[in-house]
Amino acid sequence: MTGMQRYFLEADARIAADRFRVAGEDAHHVLRVLRMRQGDRFGIVSQGETYEVEIVDVQEDELIVRVIAQMASFSEPPFAVTLLQGLPKGERLDELLMHGTEVGVTQFVIFEGVRSVARWEEKKRAVKLERCQRIVKEAAEQSQRNVVPRVVYAPDLASALRQSAGYLIAPYEAQGQGLPPLKSALRQLNEKRDRLRAEGVRLVIGPEGGLDGAEVQEIQAHEGRLVTLGARILRTETAGVVTVAQLLYELESEG
Amino acid sequence: MTGMQRYFLEADARIAADRFRVAGEDAHHVLRVLRMRQGDRFGIVSQGETYEVEIVDVQEDELIVRVIAQMASFSEPPFAVTLLQGLPKGERLDELLMHGTEVGVTQFVIFEGVRSVARWEEKKRAVKLERCQRIVKEAAEQSQRNVVPRVVYAPDLASALRQSAGYLIAPYEAQGQGLPPLKSALRQLNEKRDRLRAEGVRLVIGPEGGLDGAEVQEIQAHEGRLVTLGARILRTETAGVVTVAQLLYELESEG
Repeated sequence: MTGMQRYFLEADARIAADRFRVAGEDAHHVLRVLRMRQGDRFGIVSQGETYEVEIVDVQEDELIVRVIAQMASFSEPPFAVTLLQGLPKGERLDELLMHGTEVGVTQFVIFEGVRSVARWEEKKRAVKLERCQRIVKEAAEQSQRNVVPRVVYAPDLASALRQSAGYLIAPYEAQGQGLPPLKSALRQLNEKRDRLRAEGVRLVIGPEGGLDGAEVQEIQAHEGRLVTLGARILRTETAGVVTVAQLLYELESEG
Repeated sequence: MTGMQRYFLEADARIAADRFRVAGEDAHHVLRVLRMRQGDRFGIVSQGETYEVEIVDVQEDELIVRVIAQMASFSEPPFAVTLLQGLPKGERLDELLMHGTEVGVTQFVIFEGVRSVARWEEKKRAVKLERCQRIVKEAAEQSQRNVVPRVVYAPDLASALRQSAGYLIAPYEAQGQGLPPLKSALRQLNEKRDRLRAEGVRLVIGPEGGLDGAEVQEIQAHEGRLVTLGARILRTETAGVVTVAQLLYELESEG
């Protein structure tokens, strides 16, 4: 909730060993939203390194900054966390991309679930993905991530599973099935830290209507673990964020 | 994400041992949104008990239902979870009330923090609180809670602390302070289960600008534990939801 705003710059933003050019939306945010001027400081991330910088020159729509210090902060989980999310309705997607980035998701795979009401027409996909990527970049800047999570699209769960890797966990609230709680799956995973670090972990969250029977079978065919999140029913846009937060609570640090 | 919609009814909705009258917004939701008709079934909660009911009569704007079965499901945490939330801007408040209810908050105390930009004028407070209570009721119905969380208002943190009880934890992201992680505070609490059950737990989350120095002192004067949520910075509307989810992950079940 506190701390210095940071911006992710492209590799070509570096114009000298200790100088960067900040342009476009980032410059707009610095100058118009935060109303900074010459001498003010903020954070940048360039090629995975984080720096504190000071504004040394301001032009109409861009600024030049000088490196004050390299920052040691590293805020990434020790293993990749991929969220396979069934496409929900518009605003819910924005919300889960934003909050998912805050809690530490490494990659989002947005798939059209059997029960997805929303659909992405083929010709609009590129624009939709670009918009998702912008939301995630802004959230990564605000939450002080070192890496901008990737967002990719999959036409169905089978394709999403092929496009991703890692230990597979899927919350599933089928009544009376007696599925094990998330905690027991995570505690087992805690004993396989080498595999976890090497392969990462994937979570599958269904769209508003949940996962379909065929999708559940697909998950089981990929050795996925079905778990329950407990007695309270979470909305699709809450389930992924909460599950990632609990997963990193359990597994981010040892012990 | 799946399961039967349920509605919280007032005590006077019971018109016979096995009959209830459903009116107002609930009736509107059943008839107009879910488009149910005679013979359809849904869930109700009356005085803490949950029932599956069937529609036996429909009038213009109300319906009569008959009890089919009493349901054993109990979805409340084994101790009270109070979220003391610094008043954020409008939409963020709605979001955290909704998702906080989903993850299991028992009571929300909305306080005007030193750094709250939003303010509630005295004459508008009753209307604002009523609106909050409505959001929480709807979220409780959808997430299959047995209890509708309470929402109360406090003019400042000191008053919020006086109006509430329970073990006190406050995430605070002061850089370089070396605060213990949430996990270590929760693991200590895990060894005091009797106290936890008796007194419950309180979480303090600052508004957008975070907690002020005087507020931090106030928390320490009440024996509050300051903790860090980790390397990534959460928005105020995410912090409470995530912290409650992690707290219940650690403490809801034994072991």
